Amino acid sequence: MKAIKEGEVRKREILVTARELFIKKGYEQTSINDILKIVDIAKGTFYYYFASKEEVLEAIILDIVEEGARRAQMILKDKSIPLVNRIMMAIMAQAPEFEGSNEIAEELHKVENAKLEQLYLKAMLKRMTQVLQEPVLEGIERDVFHMDYPMEGIESILLLGHMMFDCDVFQWKTEDFPRKIKAFLCNAERIMGTSVGELDEFLQMFGQLS
Amino acid sequence: MKAIKEGEVRKREILVTARELFIKKGYEQTSINDILKIVDIAKGTFYYYFASKEEVLEAIILDIVEEGARRAQMILKDKSIPLVNRIMMAIMAQAPEFEGSNEIAEELHKVENAKLEQLYLKAMLKRMTQVLQEPVLEGIERDVFHMDYPMEGIESILLLGHMMFDCDVFQWKTEDFPRKIKAFLCNAERIMGTSVGELDEFLQMFGQLS
Repeated sequence: MKAIKEGEVRKREILVTARELFIKKGYEQTSINDILKIVDIAKGTFYYYFASKEEVLEAIILDIVEEGARRAQMILKDKSIPLVNRIMMAIMAQAPEFEGSNEIAEELHKVENAKLEQLYLKAMLKRMTQVLQEPVLEGIERDVFHMDYPMEGIESILLLGHMMFDCDVFQWKTEDFPRKIKAFLCNAERIMGTSVGELDEFLQMFGQLS
Repeated sequence: MKAIKEGEVRKREILVTARELFIKKGYEQTSINDILKIVDIAKGTFYYYFASKEEVLEAIILDIVEEGARRAQMILKDKSIPLVNRIMMAIMAQAPEFEGSNEIAEELHKVENAKLEQLYLKAMLKRMTQVLQEPVLEGIERDVFHMDYPMEGIESILLLGHMMFDCDVFQWKTEDFPRKIKAFLCNAERIMGTSVGELDEFLQMFGQLS
């Protein structure tokens, strides 16, 4: 038992250190040796936990997804926020860009790391549909949402949100964003089958934040 | 004028040949020399038109988008098909997988070619929102669609269709597809603001095809 626990701690040390280095120096510029020096372990120990630097980044990405899921869960617990707003806030809050890990997000979006971007997207969609299942079913139960395909609907909203706002596919101009956000919320309302304008309050809140 | 025309023909010869070779031998396995031999031109001539093999593939991808747009336009002209079905058929018909260019589609989806996948997605969304603008505005005019953000709505449907069915992000099992397609059409109906079940006929047609 002790050995297992120490192993987990060691692995976590590698991840935390690597993440700091990737943010500070950039992923490409960080070598496995840089990580070894700070964690103070031998190369063999590193390779016991990870096959490559890329595998470390993959593990960090799964951590990022998990952190996002946790932020979403925190918001979902706050019953003072109307359900539909709570769900949309949770969706926006889970995006890594909202939490200062910009450097890793950048790494994620780099063309060369498309594999990681895909890994992130798949892991995020899987995790977040789990996280949102309960509140969405609650909304259907309470007659606030009207969805024939709840999980697919949520998956679509997550996918659209990610592709439109967390990805650099579109490269919209700053002045286009207000319209794009309104259109996204309008589509989200429709997919969830809420009454029209259910997210207006949320939109105003968003306007105040930005 | 003659020189320009010959140049265009030459460029097209390179593209057609390269595309055939990429399909037959694979992109990685095809060298610029392979292309030169068949088109019977000198290396300098090739480099007059394209900076690299990748640039050839990029041009092929824009061709694929254009071919998809043309298939979509053909369907959109057929006024015997109800408007909403026509639009959904056009969206599905424009996807390259529907036209036997599977090998290039595969190349497109390969992790290493994520840059090309992005290029395809951006070009496709831009071109297809142009192609669909007229029929969508017609649908709004005729009170069949109810959309506050027509172009963003169409962009979202195109994006969802691509990510869910033309991309290998999800890797769904075969038995999941009927439900995923139904959910997609349900979301498309909602985004377009048609009456419920407007796409049922289309779904049946799709059932017969598959």
